[in-house]
Amino acid sequence: MADPLDKIKPQVRRLSAYTLNAPETPVKINQNENPYDLPESIKQEVIARLADRPWSRYPAFVPDQLLETLAKFSNWQSNGILAGNGSNELIQALFTVTVQPGTKVILSEPTFTLYRLLIEVLGGEVVNVPPLENFKYNIEAIRDTAREKDVDLIVICSPNNPTGSRIDDNDLIKLLEEFPGLVVIDEAYHEFSGKSVVPLLKEARNLIVLRTFSKAMALAGLRIGYLLSSPELATEIAKAKLPYNINFFSQMAAIVAVEKFEEELRPVIHRLIEERERLFANLLTIKGLKPVPSEANFILTETEIPPAELFSRLVSAGILIRDVSRYPMLGRYTRISIGSVEENDLLIENLKKIFI
Amino acid sequence: MADPLDKIKPQVRRLSAYTLNAPETPVKINQNENPYDLPESIKQEVIARLADRPWSRYPAFVPDQLLETLAKFSNWQSNGILAGNGSNELIQALFTVTVQPGTKVILSEPTFTLYRLLIEVLGGEVVNVPPLENFKYNIEAIRDTAREKDVDLIVICSPNNPTGSRIDDNDLIKLLEEFPGLVVIDEAYHEFSGKSVVPLLKEARNLIVLRTFSKAMALAGLRIGYLLSSPELATEIAKAKLPYNINFFSQMAAIVAVEKFEEELRPVIHRLIEERERLFANLLTIKGLKPVPSEANFILTETEIPPAELFSRLVSAGILIRDVSRYPMLGRYTRISIGSVEENDLLIENLKKIFI
Repeated sequence: MADPLDKIKPQVRRLSAYTLNAPETPVKINQNENPYDLPESIKQEVIARLADRPWSRYPAFVPDQLLETLAKFSNWQSNGILAGNGSNELIQALFTVTVQPGTKVILSEPTFTLYRLLIEVLGGEVVNVPPLENFKYNIEAIRDTAREKDVDLIVICSPNNPTGSRIDDNDLIKLLEEFPGLVVIDEAYHEFSGKSVVPLLKEARNLIVLRTFSKAMALAGLRIGYLLSSPELATEIAKAKLPYNINFFSQMAAIVAVEKFEEELRPVIHRLIEERERLFANLLTIKGLKPVPSEANFILTETEIPPAELFSRLVSAGILIRDVSRYPMLGRYTRISIGSVEENDLLIENLKKIFI
Repeated sequence: MADPLDKIKPQVRRLSAYTLNAPETPVKINQNENPYDLPESIKQEVIARLADRPWSRYPAFVPDQLLETLAKFSNWQSNGILAGNGSNELIQALFTVTVQPGTKVILSEPTFTLYRLLIEVLGGEVVNVPPLENFKYNIEAIRDTAREKDVDLIVICSPNNPTGSRIDDNDLIKLLEEFPGLVVIDEAYHEFSGKSVVPLLKEARNLIVLRTFSKAMALAGLRIGYLLSSPELATEIAKAKLPYNINFFSQMAAIVAVEKFEEELRPVIHRLIEERERLFANLLTIKGLKPVPSEANFILTETEIPPAELFSRLVSAGILIRDVSRYPMLGRYTRISIGSVEENDLLIENLKKIFI
């Protein structure tokens, strides 16, 4: 009798599934979520709009209202924008239309692990160009490797998860001019850096930018992300995106979040940036910890005691951080999301106890 | 200067995008939606549960509560169930782990167009085995072709969209025993046939069943589907599914819909089945129309006047049906979803005027 599993691609069977070690704790600073939840006035407005449409009807084929809202929000044309269930779905669509056996993609690991997973499922080859010692992007090595290995895509998370480093704008502009393939900039954390590469889209037809509502926008529970590119690239990537893919509720929530962004969300982002700087300064004072400067809403931190042990001891104290020690180069590191003021205080207090 | 579009796979660039011709009309019977909307008591319960969790937090890594609910609902084990944003997402994950250049997939067209689109994006080969003249599945031809062409997958939509035909259970059992590859049964419309192939999962390790909340369950706006298979296959297919892929609101809605299924949704399904039979009987009496018996919530109908013309004339009367004349074999056909009693009356009245 044939084994049905033989019909699964061998490269898929070899993969281990993406998993997460996440016990439940009162303080959850392991996923770079916004600790302040979505402001109540936004929630109430979304609930009020729920009565406006039947739940039994499909979302619009093209989510025009959402795309127009995102176009104004990001200052880019709506026919060069795709919306997805989190940016994850758009990363998947993008790789689906570009990656097949023989395709070479530069990543700079450690970075967001989903990229490699999806590239390998599709049979593509990851060419890893590690960052410099301070976790800054090694832009010369990226450029040289791209040329020497005839690479097709370069994917850069900026600010990078989990290091917090951002690619320099001038480096990126040069890369976009010289590299004949596609450059993907995942800007999931851009609000915490105060910078964006979206203005470069006008000149660079080979640039693709990804954004999400799951971090600064406080909507991780509703899964909304978007992609910005030339309309021509967007049309091709859309072919691998499923029709009707975003439920109407998440669309409504994203639209209201944008409408109320200035008054409700921008102040929260400012507070989180201030908290990041305060937490960084505090971590610096703890002997046994070495935090890495970050432009995102988390801080990568080297630790003298094994990361798995630090993870467990903090879980015992009711605090969940991310042990990233299995990432390349990060054998001695953990990643800590910026929590609320109270959560950060509690974290600092406990870290001081652990590293007396 | 290199053209960035050169980095898109040629098989993708050749594809035209999935589109839909859908003007707005008072009566919308073009997408096989439930015309009665989700019952109010289910909506209110979902809204009440909205306060239970922060919107800024990711959904659970594995949606345990939803999977347990689906397991009880379908009488299958929860570790053999995957949930997705509509069954579309699960069809995509399934093809992602099984289809690559060289993979052969039997479809029986006319059928749901997304299968071919996704198979071709992944570089697979569709082997089409058309149905018999009455649109019944040609099970002998499917079996013979599978053997002769060394096919990897067989995908059968049952009841089939857009024909309404269901594969015979005994034919399927034989096929599952003889065929060494995977057999996918898309049961999106099973509630309207009163039958399901889920009980066959216990014996057939090569069977994969797909279901959706978008039709009978009146939740098309929230995008929930699920896949049932052996736990081993589910584990492999899950590798191509994105983490945290279903937003918490849609999960809540699906759970409440299942909890209140017997009292709230089953009666609606009964009414729709009755309406299907009433509409079928009425279509039969109209000279110029030839409806095909259906086990779903729509009726495929041959029309003497060109389908595009019938489509336009009904749009003028405020009724949107689906022109399926570009599907193989269906040059003279339209597909009509079962609407509410009033909508069906209006449709019949207008058809009688058109086909005097």
